[in-house]
Amino acid sequence: MADKVQSKVPTVIVIGAGFGGLNAVRFLCGQDFNVVLVDRHNYHLFQPLLYQVATGALEAQAVAAPVRQLLRRWRNVRFILGHVESVDCVARVIKIGDEAITYDYLVVAAGSVTNFFGIASVMNHAHDLKGLCGADDLRSHILRMVEMATQAPDADRHNKLLSFVVVGGGATGVEFAGALAELLHRILPKDFPDLALHRAQVSIIQAGEYLLPSFPRTLQEYARQHLETLGVTVRLNTRVRDYTGDQVVFQDGSGMYASTLIWAAGVQAESLARGLPGNKQRGGRVMVSADLSLPDYPEVFVIGDLAYGEQDGHPWPQTAPFAIQSGRHAACVIRARCAGRRVARFRFRDQGAMAVLSRFRAVASLRRPAWNIQGFPAWVSWLFLHLLYLVGFRNRILALFDWGFDYLGNNAAVRLIMDRTSHGITVVHRDAK
Amino acid sequence: MADKVQSKVPTVIVIGAGFGGLNAVRFLCGQDFNVVLVDRHNYHLFQPLLYQVATGALEAQAVAAPVRQLLRRWRNVRFILGHVESVDCVARVIKIGDEAITYDYLVVAAGSVTNFFGIASVMNHAHDLKGLCGADDLRSHILRMVEMATQAPDADRHNKLLSFVVVGGGATGVEFAGALAELLHRILPKDFPDLALHRAQVSIIQAGEYLLPSFPRTLQEYARQHLETLGVTVRLNTRVRDYTGDQVVFQDGSGMYASTLIWAAGVQAESLARGLPGNKQRGGRVMVSADLSLPDYPEVFVIGDLAYGEQDGHPWPQTAPFAIQSGRHAACVIRARCAGRRVARFRFRDQGAMAVLSRFRAVASLRRPAWNIQGFPAWVSWLFLHLLYLVGFRNRILALFDWGFDYLGNNAAVRLIMDRTSHGITVVHRDAK
Repeated sequence: MADKVQSKVPTVIVIGAGFGGLNAVRFLCGQDFNVVLVDRHNYHLFQPLLYQVATGALEAQAVAAPVRQLLRRWRNVRFILGHVESVDCVARVIKIGDEAITYDYLVVAAGSVTNFFGIASVMNHAHDLKGLCGADDLRSHILRMVEMATQAPDADRHNKLLSFVVVGGGATGVEFAGALAELLHRILPKDFPDLALHRAQVSIIQAGEYLLPSFPRTLQEYARQHLETLGVTVRLNTRVRDYTGDQVVFQDGSGMYASTLIWAAGVQAESLARGLPGNKQRGGRVMVSADLSLPDYPEVFVIGDLAYGEQDGHPWPQTAPFAIQSGRHAACVIRARCAGRRVARFRFRDQGAMAVLSRFRAVASLRRPAWNIQGFPAWVSWLFLHLLYLVGFRNRILALFDWGFDYLGNNAAVRLIMDRTSHGITVVHRDAK
Repeated sequence: MADKVQSKVPTVIVIGAGFGGLNAVRFLCGQDFNVVLVDRHNYHLFQPLLYQVATGALEAQAVAAPVRQLLRRWRNVRFILGHVESVDCVARVIKIGDEAITYDYLVVAAGSVTNFFGIASVMNHAHDLKGLCGADDLRSHILRMVEMATQAPDADRHNKLLSFVVVGGGATGVEFAGALAELLHRILPKDFPDLALHRAQVSIIQAGEYLLPSFPRTLQEYARQHLETLGVTVRLNTRVRDYTGDQVVFQDGSGMYASTLIWAAGVQAESLARGLPGNKQRGGRVMVSADLSLPDYPEVFVIGDLAYGEQDGHPWPQTAPFAIQSGRHAACVIRARCAGRRVARFRFRDQGAMAVLSRFRAVASLRRPAWNIQGFPAWVSWLFLHLLYLVGFRNRILALFDWGFDYLGNNAAVRLIMDRTSHGITVVHRDAK
């Protein structure tokens, strides 16, 4: 329908309702545009907290906000639930199923997916931390492994069921490994008093020399030590070559048992990016101009995880703050162009980074003022910032409620095994032998 | 392991962690028994509110409480997540996978499943309201139909996508139909201002002459009128013969369109009951003695939906209050037998029944005092009682929070489409043509 509108009101299509797309839309709401927002899901996902859904600390509803509710007030935005199959930058049209929609401006904010680096065995057997259903299913899987361990015929099988390997030493991997170790060693023993959960093994595998590569050395060291205190085995300078479904094989031929492999080793551009014109960089990211548009198509903007550019000698990060800022900037450029104004070139304001290690412990590296904090003060700032940035009022209250339950009671808010594949555990999706 | 215990402490196995099983276990906690509780799920489900999960009014976490948390305090209870494959009443042993456990007393509280009355087409295509995942998936399905309607090429397809048929005029069917009509006609229009949701059709099909058969005539009439006010089409004296996936066919050969069929027309005993010795009644229910035990096996008790007995000329109802009372009674009989005491025969104390019709409206038929109430006062009693009976503290707070959001804001707390089957809606599980 949007393509039948008078040409006086330009149509802006935004692909993706993540941090980038949503912020672009917000800056176009109530303006003289027909905005069409397309996403494969009907919710905005607060990805930085997804690992907490996977470890039962938060419920799925706390980190996902329905898009239509977020945009309810604005009459110039239309939402389409669907999958964008192709973008034709020459004809200025996108295709969603049978529907073709033409645009005057396009903002591509389709984000990234897990990069398995072509290792098919990992792709088939590993869990990742990108989608809401996946995180929900991972929580059920972890709890199912623990339930199965209570019925293990011998210690060997017990230990194998309780071996978890996290691949990737970035913020996602570190946060997940810390939360999982806490769940297994501190929280679940209350529910499983007879189970030897102290023998449950959580390992984190990092290809590089340090955990949390983008953090200062002191915080990297603090993180490693704290994870080890939590009972996490940290293996640095190690690359994964293969995963049989119960055995991880490393590049040097050595291996270790893993009933569960969580892959947090990297992301790559959503497949839609492949169809866009222009240069692609590592991970399929799209080279953009100083105003975030494609060099030959000034009406097409690429933002968030998909956008590649360099600043002060470093590539832009693939983080929520970058997505938010780039989304806002793209919207500002579109508004400025229509108003005949000019905008300054995009510049990412890096506010720093933080990673939670456990209840009451985190590391944070702030930029302005340039502060490195660790332990409890860092955790408090994390809590405050994440509550502040959670998208809906309802999400904030739910998160607060869950966190109160988690942190004050040393609990896991959600411990339901949602069993979609079988009745009970006699048939298990991915059985450990 | 339980079978290796000294014979002095009797082992009681309870199959099922529903209202019946859980209440039996609670009366055995802290007593001189080894209690083994087996369930296919690791949570207790508050079934009477499941329809609210399916219509987005409550989140799944509000109506399910992890069994291990409920039993955390008691050291004489062991929980097994698993499916009981067989019960051997002669050898006094049950089998769960490879494990065989012997018992001194057995309480069978496996509950009931949906009865499709052998109509294969309905079984294959209809949704029911028995399981937590099913209710969660039904919410996603309903919201997906509405999203698809926004993209319908013509009014015909739009109307077909928005045609919902509820089969069964008991409390479950009536409550679900009312909640669904409210969702479609009052709540979702705020999110879908451009969609003709007033043309969405909810029908309820009842085989008998009245809705809510067990209620007094005045309340039946009030319920019917109120559902019609909400826009629900009520068809009485109508039986379903077939369902093609988009067309319901009635016994008389007539039919109506239904992109979604919700089957709430009856229950039958869980398949485990078939293996139990003794007489079976309608729906596979097991005839029990006055103390709820099997006539030839005094150490085997059958309770809840599975138990069949008559009182004052009527069969026992298959309701939560009956399950609770029978569970407690079975536990009391076991305790009394071990102590050499006698217990009075089981007598069900019927406290009445209630059904919610919409926000602020319900019907309630209380027994002592014999009161029929309808409208707002009935709704307030419903709210109060259900909050009181919700099992965990956390469940109560969550429900209170969701209901505050729902009823005060005229909202649906949960509007996420959890898409496990596809990316977006271009591929849909059960497509309406």
